Amino acid sequence: MFAMRKITLLAVFWGWLFFSCYAQIYTYAPDAARAQEALEGRFDGYIRPQNLDEWNRLMSSRPHHVGSPWGKANAEFMAAKFREWGYEVEIETYQVLFPTPKVRILEMTAPTAFRASLEEPPVEGDASSQQIDEMLQPYNCFSVDGDVTGELVFVNYGVPADYEELARRGVDVRGKIVIAKYGGSWRGIKPKVAAEMGAVGCIIYSDPEDDGYFQGDTYPEGAFKNPYGVQRGSVLDMPLRPGDPLTPGYGATADALRISKESADNLIRIPVLPISWVDAQPLLAAMGGPVAPESWRGALPVTYHLGPGPAVVRLKLEFNWELQPAYNVIAKMPGSTYPDEWVIRGNHHDAWVHGASDPVSGMVALMEEARAISELAKTGWRPARTLVFCAWDAEEPALLGSTEWVEDHADELRKKAVVYINTDSNSRGFLGGGGSHTLEKYFDEVSKSVVDPQTGVSVFARLNARQQADGGKALSHYKLGALGSGSDYTPFIQHLGIASINLGFGGEGNGGEYHTGYDSYEHYTRFKDPGFVYGAALAKVAGRLTLRMANATILPFDFEYFTQTIEEYLADLMQTTDRLRTNTERENQMIRAGLYALAADPTQTFVEPQLKAEIPYINFAPLQNRLAELRKSMGAYQTALQKAAANPTQQAAVNAILKNIERSLTREEGLPRRPWYKHHIYAPGFYTGYGVKTLPGVREAIEQRNFGEAQAQIEILSEVLGGFVREMDKATKLLKG
Amino acid sequence: MFAMRKITLLAVFWGWLFFSCYAQIYTYAPDAARAQEALEGRFDGYIRPQNLDEWNRLMSSRPHHVGSPWGKANAEFMAAKFREWGYEVEIETYQVLFPTPKVRILEMTAPTAFRASLEEPPVEGDASSQQIDEMLQPYNCFSVDGDVTGELVFVNYGVPADYEELARRGVDVRGKIVIAKYGGSWRGIKPKVAAEMGAVGCIIYSDPEDDGYFQGDTYPEGAFKNPYGVQRGSVLDMPLRPGDPLTPGYGATADALRISKESADNLIRIPVLPISWVDAQPLLAAMGGPVAPESWRGALPVTYHLGPGPAVVRLKLEFNWELQPAYNVIAKMPGSTYPDEWVIRGNHHDAWVHGASDPVSGMVALMEEARAISELAKTGWRPARTLVFCAWDAEEPALLGSTEWVEDHADELRKKAVVYINTDSNSRGFLGGGGSHTLEKYFDEVSKSVVDPQTGVSVFARLNARQQADGGKALSHYKLGALGSGSDYTPFIQHLGIASINLGFGGEGNGGEYHTGYDSYEHYTRFKDPGFVYGAALAKVAGRLTLRMANATILPFDFEYFTQTIEEYLADLMQTTDRLRTNTERENQMIRAGLYALAADPTQTFVEPQLKAEIPYINFAPLQNRLAELRKSMGAYQTALQKAAANPTQQAAVNAILKNIERSLTREEGLPRRPWYKHHIYAPGFYTGYGVKTLPGVREAIEQRNFGEAQAQIEILSEVLGGFVREMDKATKLLKG
Repeated sequence: MFAMRKITLLAVFWGWLFFSCYAQIYTYAPDAARAQEALEGRFDGYIRPQNLDEWNRLMSSRPHHVGSPWGKANAEFMAAKFREWGYEVEIETYQVLFPTPKVRILEMTAPTAFRASLEEPPVEGDASSQQIDEMLQPYNCFSVDGDVTGELVFVNYGVPADYEELARRGVDVRGKIVIAKYGGSWRGIKPKVAAEMGAVGCIIYSDPEDDGYFQGDTYPEGAFKNPYGVQRGSVLDMPLRPGDPLTPGYGATADALRISKESADNLIRIPVLPISWVDAQPLLAAMGGPVAPESWRGALPVTYHLGPGPAVVRLKLEFNWELQPAYNVIAKMPGSTYPDEWVIRGNHHDAWVHGASDPVSGMVALMEEARAISELAKTGWRPARTLVFCAWDAEEPALLGSTEWVEDHADELRKKAVVYINTDSNSRGFLGGGGSHTLEKYFDEVSKSVVDPQTGVSVFARLNARQQADGGKALSHYKLGALGSGSDYTPFIQHLGIASINLGFGGEGNGGEYHTGYDSYEHYTRFKDPGFVYGAALAKVAGRLTLRMANATILPFDFEYFTQTIEEYLADLMQTTDRLRTNTERENQMIRAGLYALAADPTQTFVEPQLKAEIPYINFAPLQNRLAELRKSMGAYQTALQKAAANPTQQAAVNAILKNIERSLTREEGLPRRPWYKHHIYAPGFYTGYGVKTLPGVREAIEQRNFGEAQAQIEILSEVLGGFVREMDKATKLLKG
Repeated sequence: MFAMRKITLLAVFWGWLFFSCYAQIYTYAPDAARAQEALEGRFDGYIRPQNLDEWNRLMSSRPHHVGSPWGKANAEFMAAKFREWGYEVEIETYQVLFPTPKVRILEMTAPTAFRASLEEPPVEGDASSQQIDEMLQPYNCFSVDGDVTGELVFVNYGVPADYEELARRGVDVRGKIVIAKYGGSWRGIKPKVAAEMGAVGCIIYSDPEDDGYFQGDTYPEGAFKNPYGVQRGSVLDMPLRPGDPLTPGYGATADALRISKESADNLIRIPVLPISWVDAQPLLAAMGGPVAPESWRGALPVTYHLGPGPAVVRLKLEFNWELQPAYNVIAKMPGSTYPDEWVIRGNHHDAWVHGASDPVSGMVALMEEARAISELAKTGWRPARTLVFCAWDAEEPALLGSTEWVEDHADELRKKAVVYINTDSNSRGFLGGGGSHTLEKYFDEVSKSVVDPQTGVSVFARLNARQQADGGKALSHYKLGALGSGSDYTPFIQHLGIASINLGFGGEGNGGEYHTGYDSYEHYTRFKDPGFVYGAALAKVAGRLTLRMANATILPFDFEYFTQTIEEYLADLMQTTDRLRTNTERENQMIRAGLYALAADPTQTFVEPQLKAEIPYINFAPLQNRLAELRKSMGAYQTALQKAAANPTQQAAVNAILKNIERSLTREEGLPRRPWYKHHIYAPGFYTGYGVKTLPGVREAIEQRNFGEAQAQIEILSEVLGGFVREMDKATKLLKG
């Protein structure tokens, strides 16, 4: 249990004022809004934190990675529960490539001998951590097999900018093994870039600065990573394409045609292994060469050197390259009015080890939502649209379960999907949400209608307080982040263009358990969400999102915040381009004047940067004109919506457009060099991984200094947005009646 | 020896162009400028790095703190050298209070027992570090005697803002012993503030993040602090008054009247001891309580907790409170034309231990300047003004040697001093200079006329390259910093109002030897300035400053950069006030709305900040009007100077004004609560120590939220600047002939 703090009376008064005056839901008529609020009140009344607790304890009681006995048992347990609650349930199984470790050797051969333990020992007070024999030992999934030896080079986070720093210091990684810190990018970027730069192997370790003793007491005394904790995780080239590597773009059904592993283009090309800091420290301490730049250094008690060498290491890895069954549990409650419009709510159920936080904490919230809705259904109520609850398997290796299901059901989803609402890990603190900006208004309203369990104000009000306490400006409404990748929304939004949301609480339950053998029920209930009160809050937020989308007469898509957001993205992109131009000019001047050479310490190696091509002025006018058009159309839509002159048939036609309008932001050809990614507003960064790139076609071309492509992508994006405007205009016309 | 880097041809060409075209010196007539440049060329020709090497090796060969045999031997050695070079030499001796350690005990009594070693062991390859028996063991000079026991509290750097952070977390230091990191302020601030907050003892340690393994390889492998290194140093309340505590404001001659130690108001009130990180780590590791804010944490492999306790420590300190002789070596070369106008050049000679860097590296440059000038004198040349070379003793305890000499000779200095030019430690890298802004133009010209030994361009050009490589704007001229405190210029500029400069090279010779037993000849010649080439460059810069001031027909004081600088200070002060107002309003609103409480993690102790009085609007107009006047008068002075209509008698009268004009920036009453500090443009911060506060009367009143005093100080400063303008106007009138 955790201590409640006294909250000022004023804040409680505010909360009261807020909830008591609130009586509208976007696109809902006043009566419908009142009915919906009453429904949500009843829904809240059914939410029991004890259920989350009980299910979490059970489901995380044994390791349950893809293909494990307990993974299958969990799928069957959930399926049984959904059935018990009255849902139509199927376990949809795909056969996916899932390599597991067979041989893992990391040893230093010079200047001294050292062999890494690569093991996570059990800790006192955590029974889960004792179950060594069922655990997947630490590894990076989709590393290739290999046996390589080379001098070590420390590459910081191992992102492209780090290699530029190394080059300035005359350090080259060709033929070397790189050691990178976790953090700074999605892990898969590290071996991808290392291989591109010519390295033959990659080690990734968790520096205690990021999630170990530097941040707080370590497990089991505190929540943070102990000396032995290792972050497992996938290194498939997901920014190129997630999902089963052997069935690109189509479902990995038992009888699907499979390509060979050798022809899969999203496998990383070098062996890569994650290690703990206790295994990393001797390697780092044995390195020589220049001292690492200050921002690269971590919290280990060593001087961080760049190398290369004199430390030489051997990395030998072999994996079992096997197909494993991925069990997706799909539970449906048919809609009473629009059975062919689907509101999809998902969370994955597979873990790297016990996964009490990732993913079970989000999974049990989803289950409780489904149960509470089944209680509503017992009273005779039915959702107007069909609800689809999904428990995905095989998310961890590379979103395999959800991606194969989406690819397999693509045609049906294109016809029926209205929205996809995703959760994953959940913890104590503040509501975080990202998603399609056509959903920002709808999400904002929900965030203002759920009470924060620690303070009694709305979860929006608490986030807003944090924002201001951190020195930021007060928010007028909840601003959704943009979605990159990292969880199961990716195939929905990025591949099919289904409007999506991802949400969860966090910020006060930080720790170092992520993807380790210590993400246990014991850890979770002590440090992440004691009492599962934020799990209950998550169920209330996600439940409202589900119910409001299910019952709306006109789907609550909005275009004002969307327009505003795209305007901000464009302004940012234009500023980025100008800054790149100014910086390039300045840097070229500096190089021509020899100033870098004069400024450098002559006792240190310094390789002068190369002159770069100057940045041309780019014609952004097509986009600017399109956004002017968008703003005008958006105004017309708002006006038409307020007048509400449409009859039910016209309303259904409006909904048919709204449901598909996110799809108009995609192109079948996809983004340059990665056709699987079809969305032209949001994509995971090709060199950032999970990190989003907005207006990705244009932005990444500019960042890669490919200005011909940037200009072409401006035309393409402008066309895409033109299609979006046309769809909105059609809806406006129908709304006018 | 260190490796020379290839410099681009362009830079060399620039250097050539620059030096070959340069043919003017501010206030010098063209012929005089050419003659002066020829003189400086001959001066440069006499500078021998080998001499610096030889003298440094000798003078740093044994520990030579105040009162040590080797300290006396060094004074006598220098006096003999100056005499040999034809100077009139006196060793002026003062009897100063200099406590040295008798008992030093630091032990942890709970939760485990630990006794700190408090020792710096010898290291391989450094013969100096073997001389344990002559070394002063690590201590903070002017700590009081005491035997205290208490729970530990970690206070970061121990500055006032750190105690505000502690208060927000509910941590109080009353009756506790604080442990603070070195850095973030001058060390004496730490026990001063700790005592004000109610702590009973203070420990200061060197975190490896600041100058240990985090920064680079440690001694003897590299330059940085090894686990045992301890920074000694004074903790006298120097921002109140430096110098001998028993003779406040007058010379500590043998027969001077002395106050009792008990009535000295600048002694710190609690015992304080510096320790190494190897002694600090067990204490920090044993602490509990909240985890320290992220920016407070260092590089030790522990979780930094704030306490209080459970670590309990006992600190027992006793000192020998004895008078010791301080030997100032004063060497004069009488001026041929203006013998009663003194150009004073100083550096201290006492060290904490061997002091090869601090202070011998600067001291030997000064000696070589004096020798080179004596070579010029052998050719029949004589400076127009009297040169006074000073080797100060007892700088380390609290600027005792220089302060007592200045106080003792105050009347004579008021009549004769033209400028004081100070150096202290010197190292490899970039020219750093601070001082009176009336000297900025003169300093700028010199910085453009001395060649950087590593690159062949002027030392200004190299600094400018560094500035731009770091992302800054190109400098049009050398901008002098403002002087706070920390070396022997303090009594000259702060107390008597003698225009002063402090300079040295640095930035590429960083290490952790400062005030430790490892600041040895061995360390210095490996890491700080191999070959003493920057020592030679320092001699060239300081030599030019000395010679140009000595020979100028009209003293090279300038008012344009001075005016510009004061305008910048005022603008900054007004912005600071506005920012303080905005921040106070915002914070008060946040408190009233309860937002801090809502944002806080309820599982952590959080004490809501108090409402603060709002910031009134302050009338800056008197200063603004005065600065408008200053700018006008400055223009008139420049015009008159360019026309050069004055005859020699009038010129002498102009010089008499210029020589004293810095004095018009002082008031006999001094600054509020510290009358010893009389300068009203520059002062060391009352709560920052060495760190300067510009326009200190007004600025510190605003920072302390004392707005009545701020308004009064604006009037006073405006009057002070009025006096400055009147002096300048008189000089202008005389210049007109």
